Amino acid sequence: MTQELQVTGPVTPDFAKQDGLIAAIAQCAQTNQVLMIAWMNEEAWRETLAIGKAVYYSRSRKKLWRKGEESGNWQIVKEIRIDCDRDAVLLLVDQIGGAACHEGFASCFFRKVYPGDVQVIGEPVFDPKVVYKRG
Amino acid sequence: MTQELQVTGPVTPDFAKQDGLIAAIAQCAQTNQVLMIAWMNEEAWRETLAIGKAVYYSRSRKKLWRKGEESGNWQIVKEIRIDCDRDAVLLLVDQIGGAACHEGFASCFFRKVYPGDVQVIGEPVFDPKVVYKRG
Repeated sequence: MTQELQVTGPVTPDFAKQDGLIAAIAQCAQTNQVLMIAWMNEEAWRETLAIGKAVYYSRSRKKLWRKGEESGNWQIVKEIRIDCDRDAVLLLVDQIGGAACHEGFASCFFRKVYPGDVQVIGEPVFDPKVVYKRG
Repeated sequence: MTQELQVTGPVTPDFAKQDGLIAAIAQCAQTNQVLMIAWMNEEAWRETLAIGKAVYYSRSRKKLWRKGEESGNWQIVKEIRIDCDRDAVLLLVDQIGGAACHEGFASCFFRKVYPGDVQVIGEPVFDPKVVYKRG
C-alpha cells in the first residue's frame, strides 16, 4: 500500500492560498505520533529543505522560527509529504530531546477532549522553565 | 508515557485567532497514518462532537463540509485531542471506505517531496470519477 509507484516531477507548495503560508504537520518518524502543527512561508520551506531541520514561520512573532534554536530540541526532517491541494505538508521528523511542545510534552496534542471535559494525556518530558530560561 | 494524569476541566478551541477557524488533522485511529488536514468553524466543531463524525468547514465553498456526505466515506471520530494553544485539533478516526482523499488515496499526503522532485506513494483506493459521479 505504500510502495513507490512513479516519479511525477516537481511539485511545489501553493503559498498563494493562505496569505503566503502553508500548514506544516510534524509527525514522529519513529512512532507516527503527531507532534505539532505550525506554518511555513516560502522562506521557511526553502530553508527546511536546505538544512534538513524544520523551520517554521511564527505568525505571532512574524518571523522565521527555527524550531529548536532556543531549546536545542531541533526536528530532524526524515521525509516530507505534500497534500493533494498543495497547501499543507507533513514532516516526518526525529524530535531531538523527545518533546516538541513548548510546555514540555512530547506532542502539543497532549489533551484529550470529551464533550464538556478534557484530560491531560502524556507526561512532560522537560520543564519549560529550565529549557527556555525565560525571565 | 501516555497514561492519563489528571482531569483539567473544559477546554474549548480558540476560534478567534484564525478568522473563526481552527485546523483539524485527521489521523487513522488504527494505523496512525495522517489522512488529511481541514478546517472547522465553531458550528463544524459542535456538530462533530454531536454526531461523532468529522464535520469540517470548507473555505472554498464557505459552508459546512460533512466529510462523506457525498462519497459515503465518513470519518467516525474515535478520539479528539486539542493542542497547547487551542487553535488545532487532532481527530483519531475510522475512515469509512479506506480513503480520505478526494483523489482516491488513503491519505491526502500521497506524494513524497525531495528537493526538486516528487514521488507518488500509496495506491488509489477508489476512482474519484466513480465515487463522486461528477459531470
